[in-house]
Amino acid sequence: MSDKNQKPIILTGDRTTGPLHIGHYAGSLRNRVALQEGHEQYLLLADLQALTDNSGDIAKVRESVLEVALDYLAVGIDPEKSTICLQSHLPALSELALLYLNFVTVARLERNPTIKDEIATLGFARNVPAGFLCYPASQAADITAFRATLVPVGADQAPIIEQTNEIVRRINAACGMDVLPEATPLIPKSGRLPGIDGKAKMSKSLGNAIRLSASTDDVRSAVRHMFTDPGHLRASDPGQVEGNVVFTYLDAFDEDQSAVEDLKRRYRDGGLADAKVKDRLFEVLETLLEPIRRRRKEYAADRAQVIEMIRQGTARAREVTDQTRADVMSRIGLFRLDK
Amino acid sequence: MSDKNQKPIILTGDRTTGPLHIGHYAGSLRNRVALQEGHEQYLLLADLQALTDNSGDIAKVRESVLEVALDYLAVGIDPEKSTICLQSHLPALSELALLYLNFVTVARLERNPTIKDEIATLGFARNVPAGFLCYPASQAADITAFRATLVPVGADQAPIIEQTNEIVRRINAACGMDVLPEATPLIPKSGRLPGIDGKAKMSKSLGNAIRLSASTDDVRSAVRHMFTDPGHLRASDPGQVEGNVVFTYLDAFDEDQSAVEDLKRRYRDGGLADAKVKDRLFEVLETLLEPIRRRRKEYAADRAQVIEMIRQGTARAREVTDQTRADVMSRIGLFRLDK
Repeated sequence: MSDKNQKPIILTGDRTTGPLHIGHYAGSLRNRVALQEGHEQYLLLADLQALTDNSGDIAKVRESVLEVALDYLAVGIDPEKSTICLQSHLPALSELALLYLNFVTVARLERNPTIKDEIATLGFARNVPAGFLCYPASQAADITAFRATLVPVGADQAPIIEQTNEIVRRINAACGMDVLPEATPLIPKSGRLPGIDGKAKMSKSLGNAIRLSASTDDVRSAVRHMFTDPGHLRASDPGQVEGNVVFTYLDAFDEDQSAVEDLKRRYRDGGLADAKVKDRLFEVLETLLEPIRRRRKEYAADRAQVIEMIRQGTARAREVTDQTRADVMSRIGLFRLDK
Repeated sequence: MSDKNQKPIILTGDRTTGPLHIGHYAGSLRNRVALQEGHEQYLLLADLQALTDNSGDIAKVRESVLEVALDYLAVGIDPEKSTICLQSHLPALSELALLYLNFVTVARLERNPTIKDEIATLGFARNVPAGFLCYPASQAADITAFRATLVPVGADQAPIIEQTNEIVRRINAACGMDVLPEATPLIPKSGRLPGIDGKAKMSKSLGNAIRLSASTDDVRSAVRHMFTDPGHLRASDPGQVEGNVVFTYLDAFDEDQSAVEDLKRRYRDGGLADAKVKDRLFEVLETLLEPIRRRRKEYAADRAQVIEMIRQGTARAREVTDQTRADVMSRIGLFRLDK
């Protein structure tokens, strides 16, 4: 099953529900750019998972496929190093997901903390789509189909990996051998980036996000409206750094962290205007986003090339995932028609 | 979508959990032999659905695939007229099932009367496997993937067809056109055949069944132990026909129903021994089962030929179901990579 010369396999990706923002960059995209060196990394454009709570807006799910792919390429994901693939075109993922549903109880899915929180957040109550309740089995299928052993996730998604490993152990027990590897979550040190309003997480739907494709004017406007310290009325007043989004973003994106520490000290002491700190953040974000924006435009000018890149990645992913499906189905003891 | 010259499409089949018995023959198999004339009939060897409550005994599910296929051939299913196919080898069924799960709520699945009854019967309580709760979506996938408009089911399964049609309407609404047809249940006039002990339904697991492959000795023994009228102690006593399994089976299988009516009259009047009625039933069952048993042995002697027949049927079914999957996926508005 394992090849000592093989690089560790990573599965990651995004639900295709809209273009990505700098929160995604801080939390995952820049890690992926680093991880594609030395790992075999698959990036799943998760359009089917997007459907689990967006079956009423399939156009958004469809149109976001290319947007997310463009964001990947723009931040430096290299299709020669990472495999970008489209979930709905990998039938083995659905086959494995449906199989795994027989190895997990409804009660266990309902107890999953991630699912419980998300059902509450989305306000589904009793009207939760069955696909949504079942998506941990679907994610287990995604992860195991690629035989991924490393899965970068936010801390709030760690229970999904636990559930995946429970399913892996049950499938391996049913197979009488370790057909599937268990996975380890890769949880980033930095927490989730807050929105520009300082509220919870950055999210397109909350209108508090800065897209990776944001124009210079968009970035300027976002920084201008950014939540700071409401008690810091005059530049001469001592200001608070904690919960001040401008500083949170400087922590996340400024490459000169000693300069940031210096700014924090001066802000706390009093005498540093919000405008000054915001000017620095604007420069930092522009330095980050300008090349991303430029590359995104270049790729967006040749959509056919991007589609061809997804097509090739998906074909590569299909080979891997079909093989895992065939291994599981035959080893688990189902009847096989293959000659 | 529809072709006026096309025969109506039927989807039916069996979970592969053991060889079939004369209850299956009375309730469905003999209808299928008749229906294969004038209909395009698909018979699904439902190994994946069998897993929904048999994930702990996959060997049984695997070994039953050929047993059920042999039963089909033995009773007169003609692979030139009916298409026998294996569920686990039709990926479109899993893909559609997973898609449909986004168009049905957990609450709706839990309210399904068939599922509620079965969960109670199987004693799952809170430990119901997710795959079991979700199997109506899976059956909807099976039915619609073949674009079946007629589905032979027992009266207790009618709610599954209702749920299928609800999903069909939602998918068609999402597609903005009628991509999938609604299905009509074909409910047999005769109810379910009781077991030889007179209890509820005939079932291999209850040990009250007569297999289609039963030997002459097995049939003789089964008839000898069959439940009659416990109040009919002497041949001269008046006997009761209702709930008397021997008469129920004569109703179901004796081709000379006027002779059966005559026997019933004499039994009610008193003067007809159980042994006499049982002798007749034994002859009737032997007349039915002898050619089935012989054909079954012939087919069983060449397993490779039977497997090849399933392989060809599955290949034919795969074309049909892949096409439906492609139609649904593109019309519903998901991103398509196909050139």
